[in-house]
Amino acid sequence: MTLLQTLPTAEMHGQAGQGRLEPNSLRLLASLESMAEVGGQEDGSVCRRGFTPADRQGRELFSSWLLEAGLTVRVDAAGNLIGRLEGTEPGLPALMTGSHLDTVPTGGRYDGALGVLAGLEVVRCLGERGLRLRHPLEVVVFADEESTMVGCKGMAGVAPADPDAYATSNGESIERNLASIGGDWHALPQARRDDQAIAAFLELHVEQGGVLEDRGDLIGVVEGVVGQRRFTIRVEGQANHAGTTPMDRRQDALVAAAQVVLAVERLAADHPGDPVATVGRLDVWPNAANVVSGAVTLTVDMRDLDATVLDALEAGLAQALEQIRARSGCRLAMEPQFAVAPTPADPTVMAAIHQASEQFGLPSSRLPSRASHDAQEIGRRWPMGMIFVPSHRGLSHSAAEFTSLDQCQAGTAVLLESLRLLDRSLHPAP
Amino acid sequence: MTLLQTLPTAEMHGQAGQGRLEPNSLRLLASLESMAEVGGQEDGSVCRRGFTPADRQGRELFSSWLLEAGLTVRVDAAGNLIGRLEGTEPGLPALMTGSHLDTVPTGGRYDGALGVLAGLEVVRCLGERGLRLRHPLEVVVFADEESTMVGCKGMAGVAPADPDAYATSNGESIERNLASIGGDWHALPQARRDDQAIAAFLELHVEQGGVLEDRGDLIGVVEGVVGQRRFTIRVEGQANHAGTTPMDRRQDALVAAAQVVLAVERLAADHPGDPVATVGRLDVWPNAANVVSGAVTLTVDMRDLDATVLDALEAGLAQALEQIRARSGCRLAMEPQFAVAPTPADPTVMAAIHQASEQFGLPSSRLPSRASHDAQEIGRRWPMGMIFVPSHRGLSHSAAEFTSLDQCQAGTAVLLESLRLLDRSLHPAP
Repeated sequence: MTLLQTLPTAEMHGQAGQGRLEPNSLRLLASLESMAEVGGQEDGSVCRRGFTPADRQGRELFSSWLLEAGLTVRVDAAGNLIGRLEGTEPGLPALMTGSHLDTVPTGGRYDGALGVLAGLEVVRCLGERGLRLRHPLEVVVFADEESTMVGCKGMAGVAPADPDAYATSNGESIERNLASIGGDWHALPQARRDDQAIAAFLELHVEQGGVLEDRGDLIGVVEGVVGQRRFTIRVEGQANHAGTTPMDRRQDALVAAAQVVLAVERLAADHPGDPVATVGRLDVWPNAANVVSGAVTLTVDMRDLDATVLDALEAGLAQALEQIRARSGCRLAMEPQFAVAPTPADPTVMAAIHQASEQFGLPSSRLPSRASHDAQEIGRRWPMGMIFVPSHRGLSHSAAEFTSLDQCQAGTAVLLESLRLLDRSLHPAP
Repeated sequence: MTLLQTLPTAEMHGQAGQGRLEPNSLRLLASLESMAEVGGQEDGSVCRRGFTPADRQGRELFSSWLLEAGLTVRVDAAGNLIGRLEGTEPGLPALMTGSHLDTVPTGGRYDGALGVLAGLEVVRCLGERGLRLRHPLEVVVFADEESTMVGCKGMAGVAPADPDAYATSNGESIERNLASIGGDWHALPQARRDDQAIAAFLELHVEQGGVLEDRGDLIGVVEGVVGQRRFTIRVEGQANHAGTTPMDRRQDALVAAAQVVLAVERLAADHPGDPVATVGRLDVWPNAANVVSGAVTLTVDMRDLDATVLDALEAGLAQALEQIRARSGCRLAMEPQFAVAPTPADPTVMAAIHQASEQFGLPSSRLPSRASHDAQEIGRRWPMGMIFVPSHRGLSHSAAEFTSLDQCQAGTAVLLESLRLLDRSLHPAP
């Protein structure tokens, strides 16, 4: 039995505000398939890195579909491709949905693409029934999410003004890259939208983790995009002869670093809730089999939805380093690399997603987004919500990325219904 | 008060077998200084890598000193420079002393050089008094100790027959290198000495550790050269997104590797005696701050004088890996790289060193040699003993290597006296 069979028959009442609408799953499949061909690789992966010919081709295809669906289409200075369908009540701010079409070098078919194609399916669904929302509806393809995030940051007005601050994946300047997709570096501040321009932003995305699949849920009501803190820790001991240096006379930087690795793991695993903390990079000097290590540099990456949890982890790490320093005789220094504040989802938007899932009888649960998304930047200024659908075995950024059509369809149905619920509840007529 | 003032006045009785002889410390100093100038660097270090022009220059200088002292001098096929002074009783095997003159790239003034210069001082001391031992006395400069050990291995008859097995420090073939110092690769088997050719071998060397200095002893009676076992351990987990992978779903290879590092340290530190074990090299894959590690390769180096202790450490490591495997879900494989058996010192030679120290009232104690030396190969076939003198702060293989003249003098005095004691006790006249 497919999910489609479990969904109630679409009810159509001739106006957008009533009943349930069901996306057309075969049409959604066709657009997913067509988009996956753009930059499609022999191994089944997709390569549409930002600002490449494949990226431009994907955007042009999507733009043509938006126009066919009756939307006005523009590219803003930050390179965002924006389709807009006016609402029935003049002067209301826009309901916005979208995601990105650019990928990592060996990307999957769903990461980003599902969000924008679901947005397209929403407008097609409404359009074929002659329906309009009260609010304007915008479907956005954000520019270069996998690398510079210049699109979402530009729209939020937080894109760096220094062109050298952009580490583009093709090595070209951000000026040339933006120009290549119809953006305009010199007009970047104009991409910033007003506080009153957007009523809410909704992003449908594949989970890229295994939580929903483990729980047996179809819909994830995202509680927010986690904050992240990155540190460099430098351990300095005393390089020495691995033969002639007795165990009790060593200041072995690698032994101290191993204690840091385990302390980081315990801090996150033992903390209430589900923060994550990782030592992913560790470099040993001189890294020779017959030498007691003199120095180790390692990174610590911490993520949680709650800034106070990040504060607690950071304090716990500092305390652990102090204990390791006292025990080992090594010097340990902790240097912040960067910090990204958590972006909580908006309670009203979350409630709409939950209610939409309930209406379709789709099992849902709450979870944080532990990867970054366009929504994290948009959500800093406007009410934001994200809908997650399962990723098979949590795999992403690879040809193995897989979300079934039923799951894509369920997410799209919830996106559409959530937008309709918000359209009814936000800015009620006086 | 210098050490020299604490030494009893030399007693001379006109024959080698009686009384005590005191080396000439200023002459020893002069030879140490002259040799340190050969390959001396601006930073105070010495660079006489094996087979380089500086190495050849050092050997030529030493050879001229041996000739001046009345020894016959030859270079064997393995490149060993051998000075020989015949004894008073025909047909006895030789008492041999020596060490090496080649250094690491940033070597110290004492490592190796002290041993051969002390041997020279012994023959000068005997010579200026017109004394001879009963046994022939040989002073040897072994070839290329810091790299291939072709000299001592050639003399012991255990040098590899495959020229590609020699990783020379200058990248030249071992054939060309041996030819450049008067050796002969094609005659290498002829460098092997008969079992009956050598009565005992004594090597004076700086400790290259801090044990004697810590104990306040001047003389180390070496119990043997430790055995060594080297392993490669490969840890395989699952590379994953550092944000989206919950702590309880990770197979983090670096966390498992950190447990290995600490287990290795505990195994050696907790074992009775004083074995050492070291993880000196550790490589992480993919080694990126935002990726849970998929694989780690690390080395384990274990050393002890007692093969049964090495057996216990190896078994303990295998057991620890099994526990870490069970806890972490990672795969751990342990692959032996090489094993070198311990070389125990000969009890008679150790007793002579101890007795000589006592005669001079020099505080001595027993300790193993945890670094490799020419004596480890010679000691596999002939009775061997090593005399250690303190290394300031245990530093070696650097410009900071330092052993005071008093300490060098003490070691040389004990070397001379030990040889005389052995000369009296070994092969007694019928």
